[in-house]
Amino acid sequence: MLKGFSVPLTPQGKSPLVNLPPWHYSSDCIAIEYWADPAAIEALLPPGVIRDSQSEGRAFFWFLDWQFTGSNDELTDPARYQYREAFVLVEAVFDGKPINYCPFIYVDNDAAISRGWAQGFPKKRASVFQTRSFAASSPAAAPLAKGSRFGASVAAHDERLATARIRLEEAVKDPTKVFNRPTVMRRYFPQLAAGRQDKPSVNELTLSLTDNLRIVDVWAGLAELSIPEVFNEELHALAPRRVGRGYRLGMSYSVTDLKILKDYNA
Amino acid sequence: MLKGFSVPLTPQGKSPLVNLPPWHYSSDCIAIEYWADPAAIEALLPPGVIRDSQSEGRAFFWFLDWQFTGSNDELTDPARYQYREAFVLVEAVFDGKPINYCPFIYVDNDAAISRGWAQGFPKKRASVFQTRSFAASSPAAAPLAKGSRFGASVAAHDERLATARIRLEEAVKDPTKVFNRPTVMRRYFPQLAAGRQDKPSVNELTLSLTDNLRIVDVWAGLAELSIPEVFNEELHALAPRRVGRGYRLGMSYSVTDLKILKDYNA
Amino acid sequence: MLKGFSVPLTPQGKSPLVNLPPWHYSSDCIAIEYWADPAAIEALLPPGVIRDSQSEGRAFFWFLDWQFTGSNDELTDPARYQYREAFVLVEAVFDGKPINYCPFIYVDNDAAISRGWAQGFPKKRASVFQTRSFAASSPAAAPLAKGSRFGASVAAHDERLATARIRLEEAVKDPTKVFNRPTVMRRYFPQLAAGRQDKPSVNELTLSLTDNLRIVDVWAGLAELSIPEVFNEELHALAPRRVGRGYRLGMSYSVTDLKILKDYNA
Amino acid sequence: MLKGFSVPLTPQGKSPLVNLPPWHYSSDCIAIEYWADPAAIEALLPPGVIRDSQSEGRAFFWFLDWQFTGSNDELTDPARYQYREAFVLVEAVFDGKPINYCPFIYVDNDAAISRGWAQGFPKKRASVFQTRSFAASSPAAAPLAKGSRFGASVAAHDERLATARIRLEEAVKDPTKVFNRPTVMRRYFPQLAAGRQDKPSVNELTLSLTDNLRIVDVWAGLAELSIPEVFNEELHALAPRRVGRGYRLGMSYSVTDLKILKDYNA
Repeated sequence: MLKGFSVPLTPQGKSPLVNLPPWHYSSDCIAIEYWADPAAIEALLPPGVIRDSQSEGRAFFWFLDWQFTGSNDELTDPARYQYREAFVLVEAVFDGKPINYCPFIYVDNDAAISRGWAQGFPKKRASVFQTRSFAASSPAAAPLAKGSRFGASVAAHDERLATARIRLEEAVKDPTKVFNRPTVMRRYFPQLAAGRQDKPSVNELTLSLTDNLRIVDVWAGLAELSIPEVFNEELHALAPRRVGRGYRLGMSYSVTDLKILKDYNA
Repeated sequence: MLKGFSVPLTPQGKSPLVNLPPWHYSSDCIAIEYWADPAAIEALLPPGVIRDSQSEGRAFFWFLDWQFTGSNDELTDPARYQYREAFVLVEAVFDGKPINYCPFIYVDNDAAISRGWAQGFPKKRASVFQTRSFAASSPAAAPLAKGSRFGASVAAHDERLATARIRLEEAVKDPTKVFNRPTVMRRYFPQLAAGRQDKPSVNELTLSLTDNLRIVDVWAGLAELSIPEVFNEELHALAPRRVGRGYRLGMSYSVTDLKILKDYNA
Repeated sequence: MLKGFSVPLTPQGKSPLVNLPPWHYSSDCIAIEYWADPAAIEALLPPGVIRDSQSEGRAFFWFLDWQFTGSNDELTDPARYQYREAFVLVEAVFDGKPINYCPFIYVDNDAAISRGWAQGFPKKRASVFQTRSFAASSPAAAPLAKGSRFGASVAAHDERLATARIRLEEAVKDPTKVFNRPTVMRRYFPQLAAGRQDKPSVNELTLSLTDNLRIVDVWAGLAELSIPEVFNEELHALAPRRVGRGYRLGMSYSVTDLKILKDYNA
Repeated sequence: MLKGFSVPLTPQGKSPLVNLPPWHYSSDCIAIEYWADPAAIEALLPPGVIRDSQSEGRAFFWFLDWQFTGSNDELTDPARYQYREAFVLVEAVFDGKPINYCPFIYVDNDAAISRGWAQGFPKKRASVFQTRSFAASSPAAAPLAKGSRFGASVAAHDERLATARIRLEEAVKDPTKVFNRPTVMRRYFPQLAAGRQDKPSVNELTLSLTDNLRIVDVWAGLAELSIPEVFNEELHALAPRRVGRGYRLGMSYSVTDLKILKDYNA
């Protein structure tokens, strides 16, 4: 009997990239509020997800240092399971309700790619960094305090895709006013058999479900964000026209389920 | 209209990891013939694929330096599309016919992971190297000639999974006597929705189809292969009990199709 | 006028790997106390540094997640300056006084290699990881609390060189009882001119000088450490015969100077 | 007795990044002839090396896939010793004679950094790629033939520093007309002791010496080269004003010696 949530399936279930949920996550995050071209956002939305006429192109660019664990002490094997991620969430509407949609996401770990694709996150491999806040005070420590500066970047196939910087100004008491839309993705797995390459095997609209979501130590401040034009990469279509506030926070949650909003193959 | 064979789908189809076939490949390869524990091979086979009682555990461990191109000059963007791979093929039987089955495969490139999963290759990310043969003569050149020595290795999550060395002895006139079994894989895409996590969305047995297969410059010689025991990795179950000959060759082919041998969900 | 502390020297001093001190550092650290073969330690000591007959082979294996900054906001450019490191400190005696000597050190960043060689740290490039402690509570968070588990690893040229695990038991009030020896290194830069290759251009015994050293949040607990035998690597000579306690701590300091204890060329 | 050409010195000499010469190299190379701002070149030259008034800013941007071996079968350990490199050579004059000077060089391997610094090459770590020519014919093979296209790129700290493309037109019979200047470097090792940080321990002008230089299979053709402006990196000062021909060739040589042209500390 072969075991595993993902490939490779093996007799003991040790080699698979991913094993069965629950999956637990804790992270440090930098998130930049900004406004992109609403038409560029619209062009990236899947069928049934429409432009949010209220949001005028509002988006968030996130950078995350993640720690993952399943049920087998994965957090003590950081070479395999610790990872870094960056993604864009654009504001949109599905079924009359405001949502965030994820058109681009980058990560430096294959287990995270495997979990992400199973959920609908269109992950590519990248190199991602963010300034960290260390306990031992020093000009190098970046404490969570007014005036602290943080930088973040993401690069794929040896091209810098985005760079951000923030300067902390004040703690945020109620982050639910900032981060409150559900996240919608497109779960997609292609088909290679000739004659059916336009009929993906899996083509669904999904909703991310999180258990025990915690958002802590939220600070806000000044932000910069650049998304340069890069050869053969369309992320630049979502370049900032205007940048809002920058946030630095901690976040944790667990994943055990996924909601299928729509099956495009049905 | 969103374009792409794989995620992320985008308006111009530049960002997707993979675009529609044809996919063209050329490579330099090191392949080690060896014999593993037949019971360990059997334990890795999917339903309907059975032990090859003739082969006594025969397997090949491959290392490949690949160049890929689609229809958009991908070969001139090597930072994105050139890659290295290692895999095991074990001898088995399907539907009464001798085949090779691929239980483990490792690669250093996300576009290759995406194409591979669509075909049924259970790819994980790894670091792969092989000695190359250079044109400018030197003690460092490793020419295709009697006595030349080549090494190869694969590592994942910072653990060395396999190491091989060969010493060339003679050119091989007819490689079809060595490499002649079709390759069978399991195409598998999991489902995260609660209550259905034991019902993968895609679960098929597939057959690799190659157009214009060319095998050139085949040399054979002495070989060494080690597959050490590594924490939380089952590749070691296929460690060599006996090592046969080592091969160094060039190989090219194109991919436009995939044959579905069996749909386990049907 | 060309500028820079290290190569490449450039007109504006932006490209050099390293600029002039002060250099500021803050880190999270995992340190494993253990005992190696005293004869193996002795065989690695430079002239004038002798065996510590009191220590019976005591050593510490360190893993560090570092943040660096100079005077130009380097901490906001983490893709270039944030890094991870692992090293061994062995107990020895110089000039009648107990010291730690550093025979092996591994790091994932070239700026850190450049600063290290200038000080006498014999750095090689590696991949280093440690479990991190995150603020947002979760099974993945690894808080600084009794029972928390941390793992760490270092790999070079695709071989795992060392793996450690600790389980926190109690906070340590006075870390100066644990970490109190000065660190001594050999600063060494070779000479390639024929006939003088046995006369290194720089060959000195040095003492690490740190300003504003702070050690915070120290916890101790149970520890495991393995240093497997690896082809063509001698770190294994310092494999543990016995493992003591494991520590998890924060540390920061600045560097502006280096003491030359001895010039072997004089 | 500790052994090694470079750190770390060890009893058996297995761990050092580099052992004593001879060092043997073979490579595939892409080289782009171009013209930069002569004043920008002049600003990068060390004392005593002057502008070449004949060359009008002529330079070559090189990309190299290298295989290295010493005397211990290093070529069979490609995970440790095979590497990729990119550098600029600018035309200049020393002691009345035309030379090439190397102000910037990037490499993906620490052993290559160590050898390079000992010679005077100001290496930084980077990610480097070039299209390869494979034996098995395919649209992916890039044969050495009229019309074949090759790409190359170099990135450091997650920023693309340069991208090149060439299209082969014709074989070059006599490459000595193209590649015939000796290469001059600045060998430099800094000093950290306070009060002497402006007095580097090693500060020499050196001349690269190569034994058994072979240049083979030289093709020339059309070339493109871009060197974009990157934050905190001065390579862009040498961006092309005009691009000449592109070359693809094989090259091998051995290194056993280095000539010191001038000791700036004397």
